[in-house]
Amino acid sequence: MPTQRIVFAIDIGGTKMRGAVVSKSGDILARDDIPTQAAMGEAAGMKRLAALLRKMSADLPDTEPVGIGMAIAGTVDTESGLFSSPPNLPSWHETAPSLDIGEHLGLPSWVHNDASLAALGEYVFGIGAGTKSLVMVTLGTGVGGGLVLDGHLYGGYRGYAGEIGHLVVDRSGPQCACGGRGCLEMMASGTAMARIARERLTAGETSLVTELVRGDVDKIRAETLVKAEGEADPLAGDVLRGAADYMGVGVATLRSLLDPELIVIGGGVSRNLHIFFPRLVASAKAHATNVDKALCPVVPTVLGDDAGLLGAAALAWEKLEG
Amino acid sequence: MPTQRIVFAIDIGGTKMRGAVVSKSGDILARDDIPTQAAMGEAAGMKRLAALLRKMSADLPDTEPVGIGMAIAGTVDTESGLFSSPPNLPSWHETAPSLDIGEHLGLPSWVHNDASLAALGEYVFGIGAGTKSLVMVTLGTGVGGGLVLDGHLYGGYRGYAGEIGHLVVDRSGPQCACGGRGCLEMMASGTAMARIARERLTAGETSLVTELVRGDVDKIRAETLVKAEGEADPLAGDVLRGAADYMGVGVATLRSLLDPELIVIGGGVSRNLHIFFPRLVASAKAHATNVDKALCPVVPTVLGDDAGLLGAAALAWEKLEG
Repeated sequence: MPTQRIVFAIDIGGTKMRGAVVSKSGDILARDDIPTQAAMGEAAGMKRLAALLRKMSADLPDTEPVGIGMAIAGTVDTESGLFSSPPNLPSWHETAPSLDIGEHLGLPSWVHNDASLAALGEYVFGIGAGTKSLVMVTLGTGVGGGLVLDGHLYGGYRGYAGEIGHLVVDRSGPQCACGGRGCLEMMASGTAMARIARERLTAGETSLVTELVRGDVDKIRAETLVKAEGEADPLAGDVLRGAADYMGVGVATLRSLLDPELIVIGGGVSRNLHIFFPRLVASAKAHATNVDKALCPVVPTVLGDDAGLLGAAALAWEKLEG
Repeated sequence: MPTQRIVFAIDIGGTKMRGAVVSKSGDILARDDIPTQAAMGEAAGMKRLAALLRKMSADLPDTEPVGIGMAIAGTVDTESGLFSSPPNLPSWHETAPSLDIGEHLGLPSWVHNDASLAALGEYVFGIGAGTKSLVMVTLGTGVGGGLVLDGHLYGGYRGYAGEIGHLVVDRSGPQCACGGRGCLEMMASGTAMARIARERLTAGETSLVTELVRGDVDKIRAETLVKAEGEADPLAGDVLRGAADYMGVGVATLRSLLDPELIVIGGGVSRNLHIFFPRLVASAKAHATNVDKALCPVVPTVLGDDAGLLGAAALAWEKLEG
């Protein structure tokens, strides 16, 4: 039996690091994860991750690893591999995890922002297979996204393109940690939903949410609101619908500017897409130009949490085999 | 003397059609224009235009026309050449002027939206020469734009990309003719500035503007406001600054989403850029992410009114010689 060429796909988040062995056609032959232990530093993390991948590879004797693709949560320079000001991995600032893991394993490696790679994953192995262009919007604790344009992941001049969370959707909105104001992420992310609910409860509104967090409003998460909405709680429903409306504004802007073939919605909060989706689509339609109203489908992710991981595999295969 | 290969560049607007003979290096060897006479129909227009171009060519005996590039104000399908719902040329709906002029002159022809071609013009022959990507924003009676990404004019799936005038910058803003709401064009175009001034004067505010239009508020144009602002009129200044602020919001969104190397501001109103520019840049900065604050220069057009015409020439040369 001939040896099968495979790549290592890695998805690094603030709490865990996931690794997978992925074939050219996108089959995940093995997968595992370990805690990131971000505070222990990047060097220790890459050493542990290398051990994990070596073991996974050894358990698949008829495979030959030929490269590594890495998805990482934060801003990364795709040329130098340097990671900058990662919000969830602050002590990893100005390290180059993709280069380090490549050195450990003696393999060529490539890295990109996780949301961009989620877009590439859907494009190559997911719902976008066969299209020419798609925009991925990830809705989770933050809002992110990626652009595949004319068949290629579009990174921009410095590799920072696709910052969909920082589309300005309300110019008089609150200050964002990014330095801007009224960003989509400040109005529609899981964190934003929790903040808005907290503010309204603190201002005296009543809701089932208070009971769900046993009076501790700092414990409110997007999931809390989804749960309360399921019990027909008016405040929770209102906050979720408000976020969906802003997401629709962002989708309308993406359509007008980029005219993609498909817009894919993913990310953690999107697991509850049944709540958001109709409202998001209605809002996008209300803000769309006539020419866009009937066109450019908005669809949910099919790869779910694996979009970034499979995008990392797609990146490696694209670099290796063009 | 060997014959010089040239292309015909055409820029079709609602009031006049401009034609030029352009060399490979972007030199305009001859130029002329005729009234569009839109109501006479597209067929008559293309016949008159063909006669003009034939005459221009005959006056340059050592040149050989090899193709035609056409810039047109409105939505055009770049594959079929079909023009749809052109706001300034309503009777030309579903005609294909580029095909018709190509047939008249026996030359291959290509067409694109004028704002997209202004972007290409700046990229190939203007301030963007040597860059990898730029976004052009045209501020005139409307707001338009074009995207050159990774070295190519990006048209989107259906050729409708670059509708910068329809970025949603104020979700509770007025309804736009496009069907959407709070579009940049509704908040910052020349037409929007005139509307906002008219509304404020009708509501009882006083301004030098009333005097400049002899009491007929329907005669207010962006130019009227620029003139009044030059006389330190508070209302005119306020309206112009408000528009510049919204333009800055649009610029911030373009940076976050596309991370271009350069953002170029052009269009008719931009002739008065000294008024808008500092305010626009300050607003863009206030809404920018930290990573964008110091980067991606925002610069004025260098080709001015010729950007679209030279972009049409660049399109033809690109198609002819790759």
